[in-house]
Amino acid sequence: MSRSLKVALLGCGVVGSEVVRLIGAHREDLAHRIGAPLEIVGIAVRRPQRQRDVDIDPALFTTDSESLVARADIDVVIEVIGGIEPARTLLINALERGASVVTANKALLAEDGGSLYEAAARGNSDLYCEASVAGAIPLLRPLRESLAGDRVTRVMGIVNGTTNYILTKMDATGAGFTDALEEAQALGYAEADPSADVDGFDAAAKAAILAGLAFHTRVTAADVHREGISDVTAGDVASARDMDGVVKLLAIAERAPDRSGRESVGVRVHPAILPRTHPLAGVRDAYNAVFVEADAAGQLMFYGRGAGGSPTASAVLGDLVAVCRNRLTGARGAGDSSYAALPIRPMGETITRYHVSLDVADKAGVLANVAQAFAIHDVSIQTVRQEGHGDDATLVLVTHEASDAALSATVEELRRLDAVRAVASVMRVEGGDAG
Amino acid sequence: MSRSLKVALLGCGVVGSEVVRLIGAHREDLAHRIGAPLEIVGIAVRRPQRQRDVDIDPALFTTDSESLVARADIDVVIEVIGGIEPARTLLINALERGASVVTANKALLAEDGGSLYEAAARGNSDLYCEASVAGAIPLLRPLRESLAGDRVTRVMGIVNGTTNYILTKMDATGAGFTDALEEAQALGYAEADPSADVDGFDAAAKAAILAGLAFHTRVTAADVHREGISDVTAGDVASARDMDGVVKLLAIAERAPDRSGRESVGVRVHPAILPRTHPLAGVRDAYNAVFVEADAAGQLMFYGRGAGGSPTASAVLGDLVAVCRNRLTGARGAGDSSYAALPIRPMGETITRYHVSLDVADKAGVLANVAQAFAIHDVSIQTVRQEGHGDDATLVLVTHEASDAALSATVEELRRLDAVRAVASVMRVEGGDAG
Repeated sequence: MSRSLKVALLGCGVVGSEVVRLIGAHREDLAHRIGAPLEIVGIAVRRPQRQRDVDIDPALFTTDSESLVARADIDVVIEVIGGIEPARTLLINALERGASVVTANKALLAEDGGSLYEAAARGNSDLYCEASVAGAIPLLRPLRESLAGDRVTRVMGIVNGTTNYILTKMDATGAGFTDALEEAQALGYAEADPSADVDGFDAAAKAAILAGLAFHTRVTAADVHREGISDVTAGDVASARDMDGVVKLLAIAERAPDRSGRESVGVRVHPAILPRTHPLAGVRDAYNAVFVEADAAGQLMFYGRGAGGSPTASAVLGDLVAVCRNRLTGARGAGDSSYAALPIRPMGETITRYHVSLDVADKAGVLANVAQAFAIHDVSIQTVRQEGHGDDATLVLVTHEASDAALSATVEELRRLDAVRAVASVMRVEGGDAG
Repeated sequence: MSRSLKVALLGCGVVGSEVVRLIGAHREDLAHRIGAPLEIVGIAVRRPQRQRDVDIDPALFTTDSESLVARADIDVVIEVIGGIEPARTLLINALERGASVVTANKALLAEDGGSLYEAAARGNSDLYCEASVAGAIPLLRPLRESLAGDRVTRVMGIVNGTTNYILTKMDATGAGFTDALEEAQALGYAEADPSADVDGFDAAAKAAILAGLAFHTRVTAADVHREGISDVTAGDVASARDMDGVVKLLAIAERAPDRSGRESVGVRVHPAILPRTHPLAGVRDAYNAVFVEADAAGQLMFYGRGAGGSPTASAVLGDLVAVCRNRLTGARGAGDSSYAALPIRPMGETITRYHVSLDVADKAGVLANVAQAFAIHDVSIQTVRQEGHGDDATLVLVTHEASDAALSATVEELRRLDAVRAVASVMRVEGGDAG
């Protein structure tokens, strides 16, 4: 068997410890699958003395991550520290000098993946990042490699487990957002400061990575239209149920012509109503799933655990085997592919359907006024339903497909109507065309 | 850009024509993703004059497939003719002389995949076969590559669209097997001779391929315990519904210790009752899905179209891009990996749960007699329910986990009891532990 391959690990928290444990537990299998044994030669951490769940030779720990990644004998750097710096500088240095990198760092990839891929190109090295999106679910490599001969048109996923847990509870129990969030926090599904999850930042970073890979272009987190779930009410969830739907926080990336007819990419994260028959509607609790549509393949879905030490470590190990095999054969993986260089489509040009609830005065002519507001902006109404009477009257409308700009203008118009006391909720409706 | 890569195609039916069309339609994208242009230099068919859906230069057609695969300038042979011979000889020759092979031939892989992989090893060439199982669903490479650092313990899938269509109809309409099969035949979902599908041969071939890849061992179709769906009655489907379940034809591959404690692999195809909350239960009509359990990754599911020209061609093209990239970089893909060489576990040692319906005499002591028959063979009963009275009395039992051998012995015992007029149905119950 060949020489051993030397691995440096940056970070040894929940995921890092599990990576060390798996490399130990599956030592022989990994050597067979790679064609050479693996050897962890250094682990950079801030606190070497800290208690860890796995037995690690203390001599492996160092606080000097810069010197570790600079070692010429290291074949692969695994990065699980997260955040932009020092991760970016460390990985760029490693890639430039020819080490392969396996990273789970979604924030860095979504903010500045381009710099990493450029460093990999200069160093003729591999950059693999399966663990950065949807944990253990094999998704990025299938998108990039298995569908390489196809044309992906749409990626729609539930990529944040915390918000999916909260929305699942709201749907199951009728709870409001605040109560469901508190339960999620009590059970450890949500952080004390839940903003990264509930405001959609985490999902937006993943959406940017998915869009870039699916469409062979470059997308950053700043390109993603982002709305969180903190404004989703128990009433919204009940309205969704009334139309046999369920509210999910979706990350959606679409390839479509923009207004001028050029191919463009639209990427957005927002809560939306999905029909209960849609494969994503059945994804409960902290599970993740991503629905992919491609010209020839049709509709595909990938489902599994989106977070947690073991699932994330499984994805890291899969990448580790791939980059090690590449090193032994002198090959490089698919790497960066942003040749398509598609422009970002403005959110206003997004085409979808809408569910609009209006608190209205219960008197003659209201519906005519409301319908007129939609008609002015060319938004066609599919169904309309009145609930309650008198001061409690609510008008629930579902539109046909319209642009986000037209819908926004319609909502402004509705707010100016005397007969409309309040626009109680506006929610997009997705997945109407799914198997 | 590099020299063009030369492709020979064996077969030009539904899938082959779509492969030709996609190579033409995505010519530029494919060249970017591979790093070199693709060129189809020959297509072996039996009837060159036949009308085809896609415009093909008639000069490409040949009836001499042997000479085509022997051409030294051909980089990749795509095989979509199916069947054992001449496909096996053609592919072995191509692989041995160093050409890469992309094949959708599940029958050949399941009967004699070993010979192909050995030829690939001798020729230092690639053998890719994503299209052989579950059509467009990226499954084989994720199993082999993305989960390469993990330990897969179980693969359970709906891998035959025809039988899933039939069972979906039986569940939705209450129809019997014969009526549902006739409807599937009328709609083109089932062949005039439906045996390959309804008797489980197609699913068994796919199960063998999946088991080999998942567990890094060699499994052939002959190793697979196989039962089809032609004995599934409307009553079985109704019983499943009574326990909030649905009948599916499952392909299951498990790694588990055999009676002597050695790691072994059990592979089986049979109808089974799944709880409706299981992710596979919602897979309807001709869709396929495969549920994977791994130590670190947890539960994963892959879902999509399992058959059809376009989905299968999408999978072929994904493999084509991979083997072409490998040729340009001088690398080889993961290839064969059967180092684990696990023994096949006899079906009798399979552990699962059972749903048993008995037509019984409605008199005192029947339940005691029946319970005794289970107890003798150490099969523990979870629930028991009596339906009807007098000559129509039925006893429905669901067991805890037991071995297939113990259950078979119990059924023999039950048949000998005076109080049991008939063993109306015996069905395995799977997926009780799923998220």
